[in-house]
Amino acid sequence: MKTKRVPKVTVQRMALYVQALEGMLQKEIKVVSSEGLAAACNVNSSQIRKDLAYFGEFGVRGVGYYVSDLLGAMRAYLGIDRVWNCALVGVGNLGRALLRHEQLAQRGFRIVAAFDCDPFKIGEVVAEHEIICTRRLKEVKEELAIEIGMIATPPERAQRAANHLIEAGVKGIINFAPAIVSVPEGITIDYVDFSHSLVTLAFQLSVPPED
Amino acid sequence: MKTKRVPKVTVQRMALYVQALEGMLQKEIKVVSSEGLAAACNVNSSQIRKDLAYFGEFGVRGVGYYVSDLLGAMRAYLGIDRVWNCALVGVGNLGRALLRHEQLAQRGFRIVAAFDCDPFKIGEVVAEHEIICTRRLKEVKEELAIEIGMIATPPERAQRAANHLIEAGVKGIINFAPAIVSVPEGITIDYVDFSHSLVTLAFQLSVPPED
Repeated sequence: MKTKRVPKVTVQRMALYVQALEGMLQKEIKVVSSEGLAAACNVNSSQIRKDLAYFGEFGVRGVGYYVSDLLGAMRAYLGIDRVWNCALVGVGNLGRALLRHEQLAQRGFRIVAAFDCDPFKIGEVVAEHEIICTRRLKEVKEELAIEIGMIATPPERAQRAANHLIEAGVKGIINFAPAIVSVPEGITIDYVDFSHSLVTLAFQLSVPPED
Repeated sequence: MKTKRVPKVTVQRMALYVQALEGMLQKEIKVVSSEGLAAACNVNSSQIRKDLAYFGEFGVRGVGYYVSDLLGAMRAYLGIDRVWNCALVGVGNLGRALLRHEQLAQRGFRIVAAFDCDPFKIGEVVAEHEIICTRRLKEVKEELAIEIGMIATPPERAQRAANHLIEAGVKGIINFAPAIVSVPEGITIDYVDFSHSLVTLAFQLSVPPED
């Protein structure tokens, strides 16, 4: 059932549904309609029904969706019903914010090691992590079973950080540095570039309102 | 020519093209083919040609695109050929990283004021910004002509931060807090949620390789 053919935008929406369902679970809401979930996510309800169809029939006619069941199924489908061990490369301002970001760990993305190449930072402790020299990445990767690399270096060092991660055998990378990075076949890379979202927003704000 | 009908994913790709073209300009590359730009952005070249068609005919047959012209046209189209005054709400770890994020300002997104509701933070200076009490948002918004609000509060305070921004008259919001926020009609909101990108990555890493 699970295939690579699911469009990325659909997976991104699913991440939003997971977030909304987690909020409902906290508020002890047991059942939700597709309209209710749609409203909570600012998505239209026919879109949600289409997205949910990707992982089987979950709705109960006349009832809606059981929040807990739907959340469980969605987490399993997305591969987030487990812990992912992550390595951070680059402990500047953004890196420090990531190390202290409680929600990442709560959602199963646990930073188990933090690397930097600055000799003045190596050995410093940030949010209970002792910063390790980036050259030790391969050795630490094996020891701590690291699967995901997060790059938070300055843009000009992002490619080198990616090379270190790939040489260490990491297959998935999130790049927070505002730079495009080349990776070989078989390595998955995704970008979190703040300014991309700002560009999207600026574009929408620049468009004159429709008549 | 410019309409709201351009899909968001297209605008996001355009933000990536701008980034790649800026890199080329720095390296004094004057002309680029659609294949060259495609390779630099990890997008296929027919996709790029389709995207570029949104803002007119720019390619020169047998030559490609003039980097500087294409970049200028793209910036104007996207509304990033100007400075956007931004207000930050929430000066925690992430807020501090945003205040020190040089590339945001370089791309025209200038944080002109930083707000927090914590009395222990008010008056503190971070990256040359004196932190201001959130209650003063409306007054400062008028004074500094703030157009975009960035929310970097803890998730449980994101809605309140949004309300403050909207009451002050801000029309565009980027929410970095991992929480869904409701906004009235006419307000544009976009999310930068780190864990959404991690979910997308986890999903791709969980999919067994194709045969």
